[in-house]
Amino acid sequence: MSPDRFAALWRSLLPIGRVGRDGGYLRRSWTRADLDCREWFTEEALDRELEVETDGNGNLWAWWGAPEAGDAVVTGSHLDSVPHGGAYDGPLGVVSALLAVDELRERGATPHRPIGLVVFTEEEGSRFGLACLGSRLLTGALDPARARQLTDRDGVTLAEAMGATGEDPATLGADPVRLARIGAFVELHVEQGRALADLNTPVGVASAIWPHGRWRMDFTGEGNHAGTTAMADRRDPMLTFAYAVLAANKEARVQGAHATVGRVEVAPNATNAIPASVTAWLDARAADQATLTSLVDAFERKVTERAGRDRTGFTLTAESASPLVEFQAALRDRLAARLKAPVLPTGAGHDAGVLAAHVPAAMLFVRNPTGVSHAPAEHATDVDCALGVTALADVLEELAC
Amino acid sequence: MSPDRFAALWRSLLPIGRVGRDGGYLRRSWTRADLDCREWFTEEALDRELEVETDGNGNLWAWWGAPEAGDAVVTGSHLDSVPHGGAYDGPLGVVSALLAVDELRERGATPHRPIGLVVFTEEEGSRFGLACLGSRLLTGALDPARARQLTDRDGVTLAEAMGATGEDPATLGADPVRLARIGAFVELHVEQGRALADLNTPVGVASAIWPHGRWRMDFTGEGNHAGTTAMADRRDPMLTFAYAVLAANKEARVQGAHATVGRVEVAPNATNAIPASVTAWLDARAADQATLTSLVDAFERKVTERAGRDRTGFTLTAESASPLVEFQAALRDRLAARLKAPVLPTGAGHDAGVLAAHVPAAMLFVRNPTGVSHAPAEHATDVDCALGVTALADVLEELAC
Repeated sequence: MSPDRFAALWRSLLPIGRVGRDGGYLRRSWTRADLDCREWFTEEALDRELEVETDGNGNLWAWWGAPEAGDAVVTGSHLDSVPHGGAYDGPLGVVSALLAVDELRERGATPHRPIGLVVFTEEEGSRFGLACLGSRLLTGALDPARARQLTDRDGVTLAEAMGATGEDPATLGADPVRLARIGAFVELHVEQGRALADLNTPVGVASAIWPHGRWRMDFTGEGNHAGTTAMADRRDPMLTFAYAVLAANKEARVQGAHATVGRVEVAPNATNAIPASVTAWLDARAADQATLTSLVDAFERKVTERAGRDRTGFTLTAESASPLVEFQAALRDRLAARLKAPVLPTGAGHDAGVLAAHVPAAMLFVRNPTGVSHAPAEHATDVDCALGVTALADVLEELAC
Repeated sequence: MSPDRFAALWRSLLPIGRVGRDGGYLRRSWTRADLDCREWFTEEALDRELEVETDGNGNLWAWWGAPEAGDAVVTGSHLDSVPHGGAYDGPLGVVSALLAVDELRERGATPHRPIGLVVFTEEEGSRFGLACLGSRLLTGALDPARARQLTDRDGVTLAEAMGATGEDPATLGADPVRLARIGAFVELHVEQGRALADLNTPVGVASAIWPHGRWRMDFTGEGNHAGTTAMADRRDPMLTFAYAVLAANKEARVQGAHATVGRVEVAPNATNAIPASVTAWLDARAADQATLTSLVDAFERKVTERAGRDRTGFTLTAESASPLVEFQAALRDRLAARLKAPVLPTGAGHDAGVLAAHVPAAMLFVRNPTGVSHAPAEHATDVDCALGVTALADVLEELAC
């Protein structure tokens, strides 16, 4: 695959959902941008004479060969983005899947197993707050009744958002028939760190996904006047929140893990008012579950103690938890040998991690020179992306032909 | 004035701009709620056969006697609120002004100076970010060209907001003719601390307003993935922000001043993204200018140092500054003697503080049992509010009759 061939298809997707000022993307699920992405994929798949279908969870599938035959080799990723995220996280796997089909056909390869391309709904959780929504629903990891009630920041439920686009939210839920068709799943993804850059190699194979989770932090105090309330009389939840931010960072460094506070909501959020409440979210990840548990426990204990001193309220509520995912060793080693690629872990969750509990799954990473991800500066070169397409085609050929 | 008489008029204003969940108010200037408040005042003033006019800055005036006579005694406050603020801050002074007119008439008092009632535009700065907007424009303390360009959180300018209601923003600006008519200005206000509760007395007289200001804090870093970015590689502006919150609090305690961080905006504000930037506002106040300057200087120095360690950017920009206001001693002492009321300072800015630079001005405070202000729990009893009306009528009689 030539870099120019990659770039031509890549650029056709770039304008959808790009927002003005920072060059980042807003492709929240079931919004106009998401629907435009879905239409783009459908057109590209139909151009390749693939059979396109949408499953009951809003995931898009495109088939080369009859999926009913079973033992299919499936590749794909997602097209939604974190708010103001970069172009590559998700879309690179989808574009590469389409181009890998082109590459295989140009090689004259004849699949003896059906090849499927998939676009999962809301991998980022950036509209309804739950990551890997489409793959969790498909595999039965998420109760559809709970999913229908998930709300976005404007209070719109997933059921309402789907309904508004003409989809039927009653069809959400586990889909064992579709899941059973998958003999292997391979997701290509831009790397979200700098390991490949340090190794000076364009493509890697995933070993494992760190266990990780999201916790909501509710800090409550007493809203009051910023000018007239004596410092000693305050019950200011912003102080406890600030302490929590620093405590999470310190605990992660001490334990060799990752912890981030990236989202905050303050009420009433007025310059001259001590807040009544602060709500924020903790994202924490570690190489093993014991370390992650230890980190979150230590964090909760420290912040609870501080809240006592601040006379504020603090509660920590788990919103999602993803256990350690170790990708199937046989598949991982076969791909690494075929590609002569290094094997590395990642701290990021993926649909491949959700599917790995049910079917043999693997991931390919494409080098990201700066390691920046979930931000507009996220990048991979056209040359490396084309090498990624070739690697993915090699993998599909290895597995399906 | 009986508590029931007070309560009847008070309750007629309560529903306007009250928002559901927390019982607080949204009465941002030139919104529907603000226009409804203005209509309410106009009706009440006309019922009392007062002459009502709107000046070029959107301030409402109601006159008992011809204002052209000059040397008027003016009382009033504002009807706008901080976001989700309480019912009393501002409206109590307006309701009390109307009822003081009733009280004087029932006493059979005959003013030999015109009595004016005024409702100032946007005292709280909660839509366009600049406190005492109407009084600053009236007195020439704010350039009308700058005022017209002030924007709200949706990017709407003051000029556009006024224009949308049929007001002409070209009329904004200093109004020396109207200002010269005022011989004395008295603002009644709910107390925003617990000094009167501690003194066990319902009404007090203001001595001074602490110097105070608002500063915008811009923290910049590198947006990145929360799961995959090594802690050592991060440039996370949330950390520097959190440090700043704690540093402001500590510095205020050390210096016997007040500092608050009540408003924060994070970009992109996503759970799984290290923020690219955090913007927040510092509200700081002290009994004297030297202490305030020392507090802000020490804060800026400490946070700049921390930003260096975090490899983030930090800038502190003054958005508004209000110097110490000492109310005219002669007027203050005359009112305190007439009312047998204690004299106390306040950390809150007021339109009376802006007018004090130009005309003899004074303030009356009505006891607030909990001291809570700028929050839905802000409260004064009907009994105390009625005593406040009587005190205001006494003051108007003392000065005008």
